[in-house]
Amino acid sequence: VDTVAIVGLGLIGGSLARDLSAAGVHVLGFDSDTAALEAARREGALEVALDGALKGLDRADVIVVATPIPATLTTLEVVSGRMDDDALVMDTGSTKRSALAAAHAVGLDEQFVGAHPMAGSHLGGWSSAKVGLFRGATVYLCRTPSTRSEIFARATALWTAVGAQPLEIDAAEHDTRVAFTSHVPHATAAALARAMARAGISHADLGPGGRDALRLAGRPPAPWTGIMLDNAEAMLAALESFGIQIEELRGALRRGDATVVRRFLEHAHKWVRP
Amino acid sequence: VDTVAIVGLGLIGGSLARDLSAAGVHVLGFDSDTAALEAARREGALEVALDGALKGLDRADVIVVATPIPATLTTLEVVSGRMDDDALVMDTGSTKRSALAAAHAVGLDEQFVGAHPMAGSHLGGWSSAKVGLFRGATVYLCRTPSTRSEIFARATALWTAVGAQPLEIDAAEHDTRVAFTSHVPHATAAALARAMARAGISHADLGPGGRDALRLAGRPPAPWTGIMLDNAEAMLAALESFGIQIEELRGALRRGDATVVRRFLEHAHKWVRP
Repeated sequence: VDTVAIVGLGLIGGSLARDLSAAGVHVLGFDSDTAALEAARREGALEVALDGALKGLDRADVIVVATPIPATLTTLEVVSGRMDDDALVMDTGSTKRSALAAAHAVGLDEQFVGAHPMAGSHLGGWSSAKVGLFRGATVYLCRTPSTRSEIFARATALWTAVGAQPLEIDAAEHDTRVAFTSHVPHATAAALARAMARAGISHADLGPGGRDALRLAGRPPAPWTGIMLDNAEAMLAALESFGIQIEELRGALRRGDATVVRRFLEHAHKWVRP
Repeated sequence: VDTVAIVGLGLIGGSLARDLSAAGVHVLGFDSDTAALEAARREGALEVALDGALKGLDRADVIVVATPIPATLTTLEVVSGRMDDDALVMDTGSTKRSALAAAHAVGLDEQFVGAHPMAGSHLGGWSSAKVGLFRGATVYLCRTPSTRSEIFARATALWTAVGAQPLEIDAAEHDTRVAFTSHVPHATAAALARAMARAGISHADLGPGGRDALRLAGRPPAPWTGIMLDNAEAMLAALESFGIQIEELRGALRRGDATVVRRFLEHAHKWVRP
């Protein structure tokens, strides 16, 4: 990989720009926030700041679309009209079925890999980007039914170069997994926060355990609205499964059934501390 | 306070024994685990190990009942038959209505204060007890309708002496608050863990945010079974309120209603990061 273009210089795109430029890769970049774009160029994370039409994108061997999820499709449309035919195109969004569908819609199946680096944060934007963000992090990689093998290998090599651990996964399985491990825990944390607010309880009333339990509700609302709506189908299925568990516990509490409550907590305890 | 008797030398009772003995208070203690009792005495946290009949309890100005919740009533029965009439009796359980009811049942209203130090841990037992556990921690204190004022002052002084911050609260309000801030978050974490287990997801698949969200499910199941059943009424009401929030989000996800999802997340975000 000689030249990488990054569209969207937030936490993920910005950190990638910093890591790659530090490794001697030529980095081109664009962000709709012109102050962030200029800062990234001035600080040396970008060699070239692209304009909104992505002129000059054909220089890149790898194009990374790191915009918020609702913008993925329109960004890929612009990318597909400007890129070199042999380039790898990747998105970095938190859901993967819709990313693959968007790549298909613009005719990019052969060159596309969906990527999801597990390196989120409650922060966002260029100012939160940092060197080494991906070190040790899992990066889920999803191929389309016709991703070329050398293209997939290039994606693996790029993430390995910034210290991440690529893990191939089916897109539908990915979306179900993150619904359970990330989106529904975020939703329950937000629901708990709102229920406490209604009960007149403030965040300062929480102990350390409660603060941990609600931390995900501190993620920035704007991008997560897009992520949750995009993954609504998998989230609804996971919420259904969660609701069955809650009903089991409610029934046991109503009946005063110590055996069921204890088994419930023991099973969960064993899962959390195997 | 010259002499304190502690019944139950787990995390709370054991840590209190360590702090008080280090401060030169005479500490008498009992635990049904004879190995723990002997270890506490040998290490100097206790001056005297009491027997199961609590013979010699009348020497104490303060008696702390730090047994698991289901044992509170029977422990208070034994205590009431052995203690000095001018002693302060406190429990340290995570629920307070039932503790006050137990004190009433054995005729201890005037001498009783319900205490709940917010210094839990996923660990338990004498081996987890440590010096300084209560430093900076809130300790909720509940008086009965007839707790004597000098008795309440003694409770305040004792917790202040070990570095805690006493906060008086009505017992029913306390139980509702901990249902929201601790028991329901524990329940939702356990329900999430069980739903993930059913979906074939393991704890190792969680990122840092997911691990934080589920940490409360790692609390020891045995004592928490007792706590949740004891506080079932307040928990059921809090779960109802939580369920209303979850239903609102589910509806919005089903309809693809970005305005409602965003408002939901924004409200929670503001509560968590005011």
